[in-house]
Amino acid sequence: MPTPLTRFKRLLFGRPLPSDRLEHERLNKKTALAVLSSDAISSVAYATDQILFVVGGAIGAAAIGYVAPISAVIVGLLLLVGISYSQTIHAYPNGGGSYTVAKENLGVGPGLVAAAALLTDYILTVAVSISSGVAAITSAYHLLVPHTVALCVASIILLTMVNLRGVRESGAVFSVPTYAFIAMMIALIGLGGYHAWLGDLPKIALETPKTDPHAMQRLGGVTGFALFYLLLRGFAEGCSAMTGTEAISNGIQAFKQPSQRNARITLGWMVGILAVFFLGVSYLAHHYGAMPLADQTVLSLLGHRIFGNSLAYYGLQYATFAVLVLAANTAFADFPRLAGILARDNYMPRQFLARGDRLAFSNGIITLGLVALLLVIVFHGDTTRLVPLYALGVFVCFTLSQAGMVVHWLRSRDRGWRWRAALNGLGAVATAIVSIVQVVTKFTEGGWIVVVIIPVIIYLLRRIHRHYEHFVREVAYTGQSPLMFLHHTVIVPVNGITKPTAGALVYATTISEDVRAVYVEVEPKTADDLLRKWNEWDIGVELTVVPSPFRSILRPLVDYVNDLIERGEADLVTIVVPEIVPRTWWGHLLHNKTSLFIRTSFLFRPNVVVTAIPYLVGRSARLRDLMAHDEFLEETAEQPVAR
Amino acid sequence: MPTPLTRFKRLLFGRPLPSDRLEHERLNKKTALAVLSSDAISSVAYATDQILFVVGGAIGAAAIGYVAPISAVIVGLLLLVGISYSQTIHAYPNGGGSYTVAKENLGVGPGLVAAAALLTDYILTVAVSISSGVAAITSAYHLLVPHTVALCVASIILLTMVNLRGVRESGAVFSVPTYAFIAMMIALIGLGGYHAWLGDLPKIALETPKTDPHAMQRLGGVTGFALFYLLLRGFAEGCSAMTGTEAISNGIQAFKQPSQRNARITLGWMVGILAVFFLGVSYLAHHYGAMPLADQTVLSLLGHRIFGNSLAYYGLQYATFAVLVLAANTAFADFPRLAGILARDNYMPRQFLARGDRLAFSNGIITLGLVALLLVIVFHGDTTRLVPLYALGVFVCFTLSQAGMVVHWLRSRDRGWRWRAALNGLGAVATAIVSIVQVVTKFTEGGWIVVVIIPVIIYLLRRIHRHYEHFVREVAYTGQSPLMFLHHTVIVPVNGITKPTAGALVYATTISEDVRAVYVEVEPKTADDLLRKWNEWDIGVELTVVPSPFRSILRPLVDYVNDLIERGEADLVTIVVPEIVPRTWWGHLLHNKTSLFIRTSFLFRPNVVVTAIPYLVGRSARLRDLMAHDEFLEETAEQPVAR
Repeated sequence: MPTPLTRFKRLLFGRPLPSDRLEHERLNKKTALAVLSSDAISSVAYATDQILFVVGGAIGAAAIGYVAPISAVIVGLLLLVGISYSQTIHAYPNGGGSYTVAKENLGVGPGLVAAAALLTDYILTVAVSISSGVAAITSAYHLLVPHTVALCVASIILLTMVNLRGVRESGAVFSVPTYAFIAMMIALIGLGGYHAWLGDLPKIALETPKTDPHAMQRLGGVTGFALFYLLLRGFAEGCSAMTGTEAISNGIQAFKQPSQRNARITLGWMVGILAVFFLGVSYLAHHYGAMPLADQTVLSLLGHRIFGNSLAYYGLQYATFAVLVLAANTAFADFPRLAGILARDNYMPRQFLARGDRLAFSNGIITLGLVALLLVIVFHGDTTRLVPLYALGVFVCFTLSQAGMVVHWLRSRDRGWRWRAALNGLGAVATAIVSIVQVVTKFTEGGWIVVVIIPVIIYLLRRIHRHYEHFVREVAYTGQSPLMFLHHTVIVPVNGITKPTAGALVYATTISEDVRAVYVEVEPKTADDLLRKWNEWDIGVELTVVPSPFRSILRPLVDYVNDLIERGEADLVTIVVPEIVPRTWWGHLLHNKTSLFIRTSFLFRPNVVVTAIPYLVGRSARLRDLMAHDEFLEETAEQPVAR
Repeated sequence: MPTPLTRFKRLLFGRPLPSDRLEHERLNKKTALAVLSSDAISSVAYATDQILFVVGGAIGAAAIGYVAPISAVIVGLLLLVGISYSQTIHAYPNGGGSYTVAKENLGVGPGLVAAAALLTDYILTVAVSISSGVAAITSAYHLLVPHTVALCVASIILLTMVNLRGVRESGAVFSVPTYAFIAMMIALIGLGGYHAWLGDLPKIALETPKTDPHAMQRLGGVTGFALFYLLLRGFAEGCSAMTGTEAISNGIQAFKQPSQRNARITLGWMVGILAVFFLGVSYLAHHYGAMPLADQTVLSLLGHRIFGNSLAYYGLQYATFAVLVLAANTAFADFPRLAGILARDNYMPRQFLARGDRLAFSNGIITLGLVALLLVIVFHGDTTRLVPLYALGVFVCFTLSQAGMVVHWLRSRDRGWRWRAALNGLGAVATAIVSIVQVVTKFTEGGWIVVVIIPVIIYLLRRIHRHYEHFVREVAYTGQSPLMFLHHTVIVPVNGITKPTAGALVYATTISEDVRAVYVEVEPKTADDLLRKWNEWDIGVELTVVPSPFRSILRPLVDYVNDLIERGEADLVTIVVPEIVPRTWWGHLLHNKTSLFIRTSFLFRPNVVVTAIPYLVGRSARLRDLMAHDEFLEETAEQPVAR
């Protein structure tokens, strides 16, 4: 019979699933594209905004002139990284995550750097995608702007719950948002480009451009170097477009056979779509003069101009929200999986290894949800404040992963290893440079948080690893059979002739022949009365009275047990304590937790075991069964009583 | 060897005291007056202020004219109650607290009303005395005014700690503040009266009188009835002067023989001193026009005017602070004592019955300290906001106590019972009327809080009593010897051949002949390897593998145990679980709390006992002793191994 709590849990999270359901449904290319590329493709919803925000903050509307070239450079980098990753697909048919590739080829240290960078990256994927998705909604419905944080929080809680249920339905359902977004983006870029060619749509009037308070100089005052640095910062922020590129190379096993070929083709499609969309949006922003506003994203501005206030505009906004939620959802699959791998390698607590009833890594999902919640609350769900923390980790992973591939080719000397190594090497150098650009340009904007946190995470991973290593070494048992004869004395602390005491005595006499009842006399002169009643009871267990001049129950008991062991009367002592289990929460306030205190007193004492015999107040079933309703007693009274 | 924690505790609270130190040192009249009357006498530090504050708030400086008559009425009432209480001393030589007197003579219901009123009264004694004492200090040092709450909090924490130490030093030390205050007050009233007679000191200039925001009408607009009601309110607030009058009749046992006579004489002195001081202060306030200010008490204003800015002024303020702290301290003796009596009568949790190492009722002291802290924080340590809650409870107790005495005389028919009953009856009627005045006039000023809380406390006391009554009835054991033979099966959940497992197996084979090791196979196909190793180990305990298709460790174990019992293979099952006890707090985050979960799973299951065998990480002493360093094993290997 499921308890009410179990029933509630099932209602929320569904029935438990057996382990054999763990096998994947394999995806065809179309579905795989939808599932694995939502993170990458959805970046176009915020990447162009970030460039314009940073550059425009310093030089105003003139920034529009720089967005297309910066985007072109990023797309070039994207193509290079894309080709580089298709090598990884070739080399790691089981899926080569940055952690695995870096650890196998470069060693544990770089592997842990990759792991730490990935963990922060996944968390930021959730925070950035959700806040950007919510921005898509608030751009369409200005009334919702004050509720931004609440909307972000609700979305993350919902995602966490859905993932605790375990997202088995994946494939088909997940294709909808991605393809809806792709369709809307094609419509936007197509129609927008057509109108641009016709030149029949006016530019967007600049109302109140969102400005960067840290750099208020205008174009006139910007020197050559400062402009270069500014564009570099814009470039660094725009690189957030590339996040998620590695997803396909991690997920090869999800593809139908031939999985490597299918994965490579899908990666090509993904890079192509992302490149076109990103360039398209940046070009349209340039052409229509779309500077992001405090309450309007570039996509929303373009949609409004190109589609008008039509259904198509709202369709674009909803599709953007949906694809960004899907992108956040991929982190809910990746973070717990990586945490599980790290836990298996003893770098994270074992709790991350346990799959829940629904086959999901529950602890990983909850951890990710909580940290992401914290981030959106601290940063008020503001994408522009979250993005500087993002991408840095991603580029560190790109670099380590590709550097690992270089080593891989040098070692394996597979066919074509030279040009493959060269290609991965080129990618590694490029992304390494971008990593440095990221650190330098974003450091003061929040990037320092990531620079501080990654080493902290690495330190923690190493500490945890050391702990488990010590532990495994310590508990390993290599001796012979340890069984031996021990003289076992059982002590039952007694405070009266009650049912809980009787239950404890039954148990005590079952587990040993040497049972001693002990009364600690806290209130002076109370022992005589009890001794008299005890002797009348005549159960064959002697009652020892221990005085307690300091009114402590514990100290005399501890001394008594120590004496017993020191005098050699017992090798092993069990203290059997009746434990009152109240029916209600407030019942706990009314009964002394003596059994707990006794347990704690002996926790560090060798050869002493404390056993609590629960007595359920108001539900004496346990006791009734264990010992003594009177009819039963009368039946057994004739039999020889075992002691 | 005391642990560092024990040593720290001793440093703060002193060495434990044996129970026989509990006997009182008996006090002579002078010391008893100091110890028992601080609460009553110290009231003059705030009672006059309250009258002037309430009346002056409505009619301004004209209030000065009414303070002396109101004070005179209160003093009349005080004399009546004083005489009434000297009857209680006569009838209850062991000390008659209101709870005892009301319960014995009027029944349980009125007894609980008195108890609830007393409990709230003690809490308010602390809050009012401390905030008034701090006001004496801030009146002298205006710089400290913003730190009022902090000073109150610090004082209460200090008092709590001192009382946890147990205040054995009482007598002599405690006389100092009371007699210092008495001396300063005599000087103030004497010198003030002398100057008033000479007429050589000017009135105090009214700066910014503290006004009552609820009644801003000025004298002109006050009708006859409104004025009467106003004076009634002033009277009700002034009655706070009478709090503490019952202390001596409660503490008869503290007096040297003949204790009743000594107590009666001391009561007379106390009432006399209080009456003189209260009338004196009110007269001086009237003469010098001392209206209380937001940052100056009446005593401070008078002291300044009469002593000038001299040492005597500061002496008065310090003495006032000291006597008020002492007054608060009496509540720290009374509240835990009453809580202890109520706990003994099963009306409060048993935890209040336990005396700590230093013979103090620790739980009562801590409870009082915490609630008083809450009060001063919520009311910002403002005496004028706290006093409306005060006195109401006191007068309810006066009434019940005296009504109880009437019944006592009617029953006992002792010598002079008629006039004694009449006197107590007169007192009871008078205080009953004042109680009603208190409720009516203070209700909107915060009095309602007390009106609500007293019934809530009574309800709780009754609920607690019912719980304990049920409990005692339920656990009472009246049957024969419960000992019987039970087939005892021990189950050891196993997850590998480790030292903790070996320790658990040693224990299991010691307590039963029927031991079964059980492996729950969460990860499929992991059992074969373990089974092979287990058979190699060859310890004579069979390993049962239980599959877990839902990856739960608990459910298969529960099912296995249920099966065992249902098939009749076991009457009693003990599950022996190795429990990892980490060395550090963060170690707890790295190890699954399996033993705790197992314990919880079986808590409500009859005939199943869960025993945890602690394994101390990094301190394997327990295990080393319990079982197996290899040399020991080799020694015992030749002996027949008990199973």
